Amino acid sequence: MNTPILNTISEPADLKKLSLEQLTQLATGMASARNLEGKNGNVMAVIDDGSLSGGLALEGLNIASTLKSNLIILVNDNGMAIAENHGGLYEGLKKLRETNGQSSHNIFKAMGLDYRYVENGNDLETMLKTFKEIKDVDHPIVLHVHTEKGHGYEPAVDHKEAFHWHVPFDLATGKTLHPVTGETYTDVIHEQLEKEFTAGTPITAITAAIPGTYDLKRFGKKHPKNYFDVGIAEQESITLAAGQAKMGLRPIAFESGTFLQRAYDQLSHDLGINKLPVTIMVSGGSISAGDPTHQGIFDLAMLSNIPGLTYLAPTTKEELQAMMHYALHQNNGPVAIRVPSNGVHSAPLADFDAHRMNVLHAGQKVAILGVGSLLPLAEEVQQQLDVDATVIDPRDVSKLDEKTLIDLKKNHQLVVTLEEASLSGGFGEKISRFYGNTKMRTLNFGAAKRFNDHETTAELWHEFKLTPEQIVTEIKANL
Amino acid sequence: MNTPILNTISEPADLKKLSLEQLTQLATGMASARNLEGKNGNVMAVIDDGSLSGGLALEGLNIASTLKSNLIILVNDNGMAIAENHGGLYEGLKKLRETNGQSSHNIFKAMGLDYRYVENGNDLETMLKTFKEIKDVDHPIVLHVHTEKGHGYEPAVDHKEAFHWHVPFDLATGKTLHPVTGETYTDVIHEQLEKEFTAGTPITAITAAIPGTYDLKRFGKKHPKNYFDVGIAEQESITLAAGQAKMGLRPIAFESGTFLQRAYDQLSHDLGINKLPVTIMVSGGSISAGDPTHQGIFDLAMLSNIPGLTYLAPTTKEELQAMMHYALHQNNGPVAIRVPSNGVHSAPLADFDAHRMNVLHAGQKVAILGVGSLLPLAEEVQQQLDVDATVIDPRDVSKLDEKTLIDLKKNHQLVVTLEEASLSGGFGEKISRFYGNTKMRTLNFGAAKRFNDHETTAELWHEFKLTPEQIVTEIKANL
Repeated sequence: MNTPILNTISEPADLKKLSLEQLTQLATGMASARNLEGKNGNVMAVIDDGSLSGGLALEGLNIASTLKSNLIILVNDNGMAIAENHGGLYEGLKKLRETNGQSSHNIFKAMGLDYRYVENGNDLETMLKTFKEIKDVDHPIVLHVHTEKGHGYEPAVDHKEAFHWHVPFDLATGKTLHPVTGETYTDVIHEQLEKEFTAGTPITAITAAIPGTYDLKRFGKKHPKNYFDVGIAEQESITLAAGQAKMGLRPIAFESGTFLQRAYDQLSHDLGINKLPVTIMVSGGSISAGDPTHQGIFDLAMLSNIPGLTYLAPTTKEELQAMMHYALHQNNGPVAIRVPSNGVHSAPLADFDAHRMNVLHAGQKVAILGVGSLLPLAEEVQQQLDVDATVIDPRDVSKLDEKTLIDLKKNHQLVVTLEEASLSGGFGEKISRFYGNTKMRTLNFGAAKRFNDHETTAELWHEFKLTPEQIVTEIKANL
Repeated sequence: MNTPILNTISEPADLKKLSLEQLTQLATGMASARNLEGKNGNVMAVIDDGSLSGGLALEGLNIASTLKSNLIILVNDNGMAIAENHGGLYEGLKKLRETNGQSSHNIFKAMGLDYRYVENGNDLETMLKTFKEIKDVDHPIVLHVHTEKGHGYEPAVDHKEAFHWHVPFDLATGKTLHPVTGETYTDVIHEQLEKEFTAGTPITAITAAIPGTYDLKRFGKKHPKNYFDVGIAEQESITLAAGQAKMGLRPIAFESGTFLQRAYDQLSHDLGINKLPVTIMVSGGSISAGDPTHQGIFDLAMLSNIPGLTYLAPTTKEELQAMMHYALHQNNGPVAIRVPSNGVHSAPLADFDAHRMNVLHAGQKVAILGVGSLLPLAEEVQQQLDVDATVIDPRDVSKLDEKTLIDLKKNHQLVVTLEEASLSGGFGEKISRFYGNTKMRTLNFGAAKRFNDHETTAELWHEFKLTPEQIVTEIKANL
């Protein structure tokens, strides 16, 4: 064939990374630019049915039809988000699948778009024929393609949700090669959930399509009425919780740090302004390279600067559970909890106060504040120093415990902060501002403000000077 | 009447503030909580047609139908957002209005919701009758009510969009009592837009339903093909721009700081990761009380901590235009520009470099960095000090000009920052971190991390120590 089947403007392939939910919006931009520039060519967005529950995807559909020019939106409908779909629009998609696209409950037509249904999306011949026919269409059209998730590989067909998570796997059996062993913070969280439920705390567990991240169906199966999956719709996950909290429930939103950023507006305006006691579990807070859209180092700056919202960073199993208990029984406002990214640590907890720093060792000259997963690093640095340094677990990274910080002035000259997060806008900067007009020196360790996509984790930690040796050297140079 | 017409659960009235777009989401939370708690009562969300283009509203609709219990969503359809509506779903609503609700292009039914149309929404009798009939409905239903915006007051009916903006007004004529006089930064922006357009820069102007904030129709009328209003859909406004930039255009998104927070995800993942050269104008950056959802003091922490995004704070007309020109002709990534909240200042511009701090007066001992609208305050403080203090316009608040900051170490002992923004996560903290392990002292002035709803502007500025006298006193105490 001399010409490509689709003269697709292929820029999305050039983009470093974009979420599927965003592609309809991106396509409206590309198609409108093509029109304005007087160029030709087909613009095609490929999104999946699971993404359609996201407000960003729906915003794109709404604007798509206004372009009155070539724009193909292929909806790959395999009847699944990461887990199963949730929401009324999926009833509509189901009816469309059942009627070969003839049902009148058609969200695409209702948004002013032309529509075409393809039943056998896994059949290459059918798809080639369809693409040839639809190429150069002169108006926006939705190509609703029915496919089977995992088609052709039985283990993936039989375990659709599990296969989103457990790579790498054994080809013959489909079983994951890295099964989780031993206690995890997920177990720690579930233990507390059951404790609260049994004690009568009116908790609900909410997820935006990522129950797997927290094994949340473990809770959902036991307490189906208290379990809510809103599909890929992070904004809804937070404001649903807001409404439930307003009615007296104690909702817990289980989020991934990077996806949660889609609900920044809701965190601020719905929870922050109205001081609603919603608990938010935040996973993924680790410095590591990989998919730039999945880096959990920006949550700290995002959450700790929202008025009215408390962001807590536990360092042990006991502290995590105490913070959940605190969050579920206070009425000051939303409380987010950063699930540690390291292995489960355990230590007895005395005199717990979520807003009071925990001085684990009271020394002198140098104080090392290790946020959440970096407390063990703080302790290691302390061991390697010649001076008897103080070690502190700051706990609350959104509001400074000024009393403890003022106390440090008595016999300390350097305060060091360690956070597994981007330094820009984070915890260390708050400490530096606090001591800015005093004799106290400060040193802030954490990640640079950038997306990391190819470095190894070890390279990154070394570059950010997050090894005990590097920190010790820096401290010595500043004494 | 002994019982209220609607046994509405009226909690939204108790909430301090929430945007209309969020109400469907909030209602799903309240209705699900009512079900779980075994309570009775009607839950009703009242939203307008303009809000429906927002992804957050659509996410709420999608989940509403899954509740299978009482939930009334009243869509007040007056055919207008703040300005006119934009998007395919409005074609659908129009068809519904034209067919008395009978059209098959029904987005609500397509999302699994029951539906009822009311033509005469401005007629009290009709509405009372409808409410009585719909009360205690046992499933989610959309009540699509056709109304007229401004009904009963001719000037408002005749000038629907203008009436969103120009309160207070003269009752007899409908004319605003506070007409804008003299040159504004809006004029300054338009002057540059025309210059760029004439010079052949392939600019587009994008708004998410707030053309009035920038008088953007002034541009749209002259260059209709280059003007895009995406309705109340901030996420779409940014990713539409991303797509256009990818195709070689130079899109400019005209945003309000508080609404822009809905596109936090898009700013980071679509623009930041992919380094797309989109220009973003940000309005509203002022410390003042009022509607807590409309406070422009959180944009600085939000934008300045996103990797890959440059946030510039101009201080004069010349600088604003130079920054627009820079943003529209560079290829490093997204550039946001904070439109000054004070009156238009003018000063000749020499050797402009967007990323280099502008030392307006080189003195000693004390350096005062005045961000954007607070540069005049920095100059006033300088006048009142006994020492010959340095005055600096930092320009780029997202990345420090380390060379200039290191130079200051030579003959300065105190660096003072002034920003019309929340201090938490902002510019001053970056400066304090930078100097944390040196002899340099720092003092950061700005707003507290909180929503302000009832204080006068003067009270707030005094409380935050943002008067020249207070700053001078603090500086003297720290020398």
